Amino acid sequence: MIVEMKTGAPGFEVDAVVDKAKLLGLNVQLNLGTDKVVVALLGSNTGFIDTDQFAVLPGVESVTRIMKPYKLASREFRKQNSVVTINDVQVGGQQLVVMAGPCAVESEAQLTEAAGVVKDAGAVILRGGAFKPRTSPFSFQGLKQAGLELLDKTRQNFGLPVITEVVDAQDAEMMADYVDIFQVGSRNMQNYSLLTCLGKIRRPVVLKRGFACTITEWLTAADYLLSEGNEQVILCERGIRTFEDSTRFSLDISSIPVIKKYSHLPLVVDPSHAAGHYSLVPALAKAAIAAGADGLLIEMHPDPRKALVDGIQSLSPSDFRQLMADLKPIAAAVGRTL
Amino acid sequence: MIVEMKTGAPGFEVDAVVDKAKLLGLNVQLNLGTDKVVVALLGSNTGFIDTDQFAVLPGVESVTRIMKPYKLASREFRKQNSVVTINDVQVGGQQLVVMAGPCAVESEAQLTEAAGVVKDAGAVILRGGAFKPRTSPFSFQGLKQAGLELLDKTRQNFGLPVITEVVDAQDAEMMADYVDIFQVGSRNMQNYSLLTCLGKIRRPVVLKRGFACTITEWLTAADYLLSEGNEQVILCERGIRTFEDSTRFSLDISSIPVIKKYSHLPLVVDPSHAAGHYSLVPALAKAAIAAGADGLLIEMHPDPRKALVDGIQSLSPSDFRQLMADLKPIAAAVGRTL
Amino acid sequence: MIVEMKTGAPGFEVDAVVDKAKLLGLNVQLNLGTDKVVVALLGSNTGFIDTDQFAVLPGVESVTRIMKPYKLASREFRKQNSVVTINDVQVGGQQLVVMAGPCAVESEAQLTEAAGVVKDAGAVILRGGAFKPRTSPFSFQGLKQAGLELLDKTRQNFGLPVITEVVDAQDAEMMADYVDIFQVGSRNMQNYSLLTCLGKIRRPVVLKRGFACTITEWLTAADYLLSEGNEQVILCERGIRTFEDSTRFSLDISSIPVIKKYSHLPLVVDPSHAAGHYSLVPALAKAAIAAGADGLLIEMHPDPRKALVDGIQSLSPSDFRQLMADLKPIAAAVGRTL
Amino acid sequence: MIVEMKTGAPGFEVDAVVDKAKLLGLNVQLNLGTDKVVVALLGSNTGFIDTDQFAVLPGVESVTRIMKPYKLASREFRKQNSVVTINDVQVGGQQLVVMAGPCAVESEAQLTEAAGVVKDAGAVILRGGAFKPRTSPFSFQGLKQAGLELLDKTRQNFGLPVITEVVDAQDAEMMADYVDIFQVGSRNMQNYSLLTCLGKIRRPVVLKRGFACTITEWLTAADYLLSEGNEQVILCERGIRTFEDSTRFSLDISSIPVIKKYSHLPLVVDPSHAAGHYSLVPALAKAAIAAGADGLLIEMHPDPRKALVDGIQSLSPSDFRQLMADLKPIAAAVGRTL
Repeated sequence: MIVEMKTGAPGFEVDAVVDKAKLLGLNVQLNLGTDKVVVALLGSNTGFIDTDQFAVLPGVESVTRIMKPYKLASREFRKQNSVVTINDVQVGGQQLVVMAGPCAVESEAQLTEAAGVVKDAGAVILRGGAFKPRTSPFSFQGLKQAGLELLDKTRQNFGLPVITEVVDAQDAEMMADYVDIFQVGSRNMQNYSLLTCLGKIRRPVVLKRGFACTITEWLTAADYLLSEGNEQVILCERGIRTFEDSTRFSLDISSIPVIKKYSHLPLVVDPSHAAGHYSLVPALAKAAIAAGADGLLIEMHPDPRKALVDGIQSLSPSDFRQLMADLKPIAAAVGRTL
Repeated sequence: MIVEMKTGAPGFEVDAVVDKAKLLGLNVQLNLGTDKVVVALLGSNTGFIDTDQFAVLPGVESVTRIMKPYKLASREFRKQNSVVTINDVQVGGQQLVVMAGPCAVESEAQLTEAAGVVKDAGAVILRGGAFKPRTSPFSFQGLKQAGLELLDKTRQNFGLPVITEVVDAQDAEMMADYVDIFQVGSRNMQNYSLLTCLGKIRRPVVLKRGFACTITEWLTAADYLLSEGNEQVILCERGIRTFEDSTRFSLDISSIPVIKKYSHLPLVVDPSHAAGHYSLVPALAKAAIAAGADGLLIEMHPDPRKALVDGIQSLSPSDFRQLMADLKPIAAAVGRTL
Repeated sequence: MIVEMKTGAPGFEVDAVVDKAKLLGLNVQLNLGTDKVVVALLGSNTGFIDTDQFAVLPGVESVTRIMKPYKLASREFRKQNSVVTINDVQVGGQQLVVMAGPCAVESEAQLTEAAGVVKDAGAVILRGGAFKPRTSPFSFQGLKQAGLELLDKTRQNFGLPVITEVVDAQDAEMMADYVDIFQVGSRNMQNYSLLTCLGKIRRPVVLKRGFACTITEWLTAADYLLSEGNEQVILCERGIRTFEDSTRFSLDISSIPVIKKYSHLPLVVDPSHAAGHYSLVPALAKAAIAAGADGLLIEMHPDPRKALVDGIQSLSPSDFRQLMADLKPIAAAVGRTL
Repeated sequence: MIVEMKTGAPGFEVDAVVDKAKLLGLNVQLNLGTDKVVVALLGSNTGFIDTDQFAVLPGVESVTRIMKPYKLASREFRKQNSVVTINDVQVGGQQLVVMAGPCAVESEAQLTEAAGVVKDAGAVILRGGAFKPRTSPFSFQGLKQAGLELLDKTRQNFGLPVITEVVDAQDAEMMADYVDIFQVGSRNMQNYSLLTCLGKIRRPVVLKRGFACTITEWLTAADYLLSEGNEQVILCERGIRTFEDSTRFSLDISSIPVIKKYSHLPLVVDPSHAAGHYSLVPALAKAAIAAGADGLLIEMHPDPRKALVDGIQSLSPSDFRQLMADLKPIAAAVGRTL
């Protein structure tokens, strides 16, 4: 941590910074510049110390953090890539993983048809929402318990693990009986009560990036899961909010190499929510694989025109099959299999 | 709702749009433009219909919503300003309301000293966090239950209502015994489980704006509280995330006249979290009052240099007293009292 | 264009909207909704009419544009893909085009070495800046005239067309003698004097996206070039400014399929400026090709450690050669050649 | 400047950083942390050195700038507030300055009527555009030369200095005969050719903030004007681009105290372009004065319904007079006069 003093800050103000640092068990080195004094605070845990502790001291101009605030999610903590295993599926290995299915579970017929398409096309995990967080209270909120039961039945019939969103810590224990992977939605990435709860349950979690959260905040949120002992964490990039309005969100494709550089956790990409329109999904899916993602989370509906939620961003079965075929040579081009 | 067909879309595609609209009980009017057909869907509840229902139909180029997606929070629903009453404090009336206190409750001495400063300076509600949502799991998370007890004791000693953040629906019932106003933090604005729960408890709620949520999304989130029957909703602008990095967030001062135009709900402003630095707080507080806010939510700590959380954005007692004095003539200039 | 009247707007206010529309030669259709009147204005040129013309009328709540504000750059105007030809290079055809070279021309030795690497690796256009727009007036501003002369000499020696940035309309005529393609930088995308001038010179132009401009504004800026008669316009996505700070800009990968959907113009991607760090460039380059870009604009320096400008985002010769090799199978996977 | 080495970077990589620093005339201090080495580079001109010079070296993890990249615009360079004088008007003193008038000069009658309203209401500078940078080439581009002549005639008739936008360096010398203040528009804040030219002419310049530029970039752009010897620089905040779409731009009210903290230059605020709707302008104008701005730049049109450009954001004469009256007590409340 680097503490920059104001120009002309007197010696006793510098001393106060030094004293506070020593109180916190840090080593200190003074840099006497031409114009101002810069105090370097050294120690392996400076990433967890609030910069405010020093910023509030008289004579301090700015405080800059050098160590990252996340620890367990960092590649410095764990050099090799983590692999999360769900039944016989491995996320983060050489094989790419496609999770697909409808935004919301609507009926047994719909989910069964979707599962068939998903499995036939080569995807290995079925997605479907039972609890839907909706912007308006007057919108369809999901089938809830009935949706979970359909997911459970379908996963048994098709031998496909299922992923579904959990929106309330109170539901998590109960849901663990019905589904294989918990999805934490973008709006809940910083719902620390929920993260702490899921950290204790130790079921695989897909942690979607908050649509206005930095990569650093995302990895620090992952530390909530990891610090409770749950190591089965999969990250999911799903687009960030920007000024551009031709897409629902802006897929932050750069997050893929950045995450691979700074973290050991596997990373999948959701092109559907980023794009907001089915016609843009294939290009984003291909880009994600080319950039190094470990898999995809895609919305596919047996009949998008009849979808209760997000129909416009869902692929049709034929478009989904075409995309799966188109992805194979790209996977091969980057040394992966699909 | 306006459905724009693609150039050259055949008649049967237009018919399909018309049929779907009629199925949903909407009136339809066709606009046969030179280049394309535009279908207007008319009805009082088009604000709640997903645009996707039409966007997915073949031949549709775009769908534009005319009616707003929120209803109960809108000024169309309620013409006159709503006033929320907490004991003898009214938020949304002619009198401005200042809520102030430390970011986190740290000790009885700290809270007592803060309450004294708050009350003497003319603020009428005490703030203090017992449950602190922190970016990192390794940061101080608040005194929790012990903090609530200190808040309860202090409100009785000073006759000041208290506001504190609730981060988990499971805690809400219990917390209602200790505090007067629930604060929903920025990260939880779209935590619909929490909103639904607070809508049922019918205790006043300060709903902070999600730092990357539009005003429309914010008012639609307020509908979650209102639709459960809780009419005691106060909005709080606290800054949005932008590219500018000299402040922690960018206070969206324009949200004040926009909210006043489109909603009947009272609105306070939190200049502390927006600025991220105490030196900028007074200017933002003055601007908020000049722009028409109904009050302020300000961080003040008896000794910011010793604060466990957010010390750098907390005013000292003397700075707070000065600000309260400086705000009076501005309040008068816009026809309010403080 | 859709004009939404306020709830309860009297008939004479609606009439005023209708009268103004007729004055502008537009057809009008009234939609009498349950709550409010919506006026549809029909005509092939409503994309060019300021929405303000109607928004200012009494009783108008909002005005929504249906037609896009750009025309000549739109796919509606020209169905088939445009191809821009520079000597024997075609941009926008089946063959992908890589333009590469140093950020700034520094010396004859540097440019010659760069040109050799570029050509050997299979790139077909040499980039290099002679006029450098720098954030600070105290930074290196480029070799200017001497840089142009080096570019001219090098293109002749190597038989490589060159692209360089033009920052001032006054320089354009003169520069046309030295270089093959003009680059309009991100900061000048809305410098309409410059665009109008380049529209008249009819030399190929690479129009970089303004880092905070929407795709609609970008295509409308292209209309400035096209409307002067210059059809040799190549778009270049180079990242947009967002809140994410781990990269210099956020590459808007979605802009590739969006541009391909709405425009006939060829599109290349600059992963170097988007990433801001060489280690991220290969992933972004691969993603761009997978998503359907027509080519790349890449910074490569013979010795990045000695670069006067942007060394950290420049690939070394060996990294560049590796990337070119890695791109070939991805190009093939999407049906292109490199 | 702080250079953070990678964990485990060998000694010779640290040595290379030290050597480069010494070559650039900087002092160096090594901070041997527990996990990594941090090199502090000391010297008064480190603000102008590209961080890339060090970031490219092997073993370097990150480079953080401590000194600001701007110099002449900084309060460190000049402690007291700068005041810019135009005839008998002073911008930056105790007296607030309101500049008002139509977006575009449309006719002699329109400008004369506007000037009368402006003067009567107590504003002291007349604004009006002759060259209009428009998003589309098919929109009205201003009266150009004829507009300048009307501005010249009107300023003489009313004794009001005039401000107008310059969009092309080639026009600047010529325009200096007709107008008193040059306005650099938001889209041209980083048009360094234009800034350099205006730095040489030494006519007062209002430098509007680029709508996606940081405050640091804005002050560094001011250095382009100042470094050419033109000290008559006035900054103008006019809103930044964010995700919020209920206003045209988001007025960055925080920029007022930030600029006052870091720079000596006077600052005015343009609430009209920020808001994009006349109904929001008064609240933003009041907020700007309360926050400490030195003045306002406001669009006022004799008849907004007939405006050729930006009518919806222009105040009517009666609304403008009302605003001027409402601003007086706010000015008094912050110790200023109007």
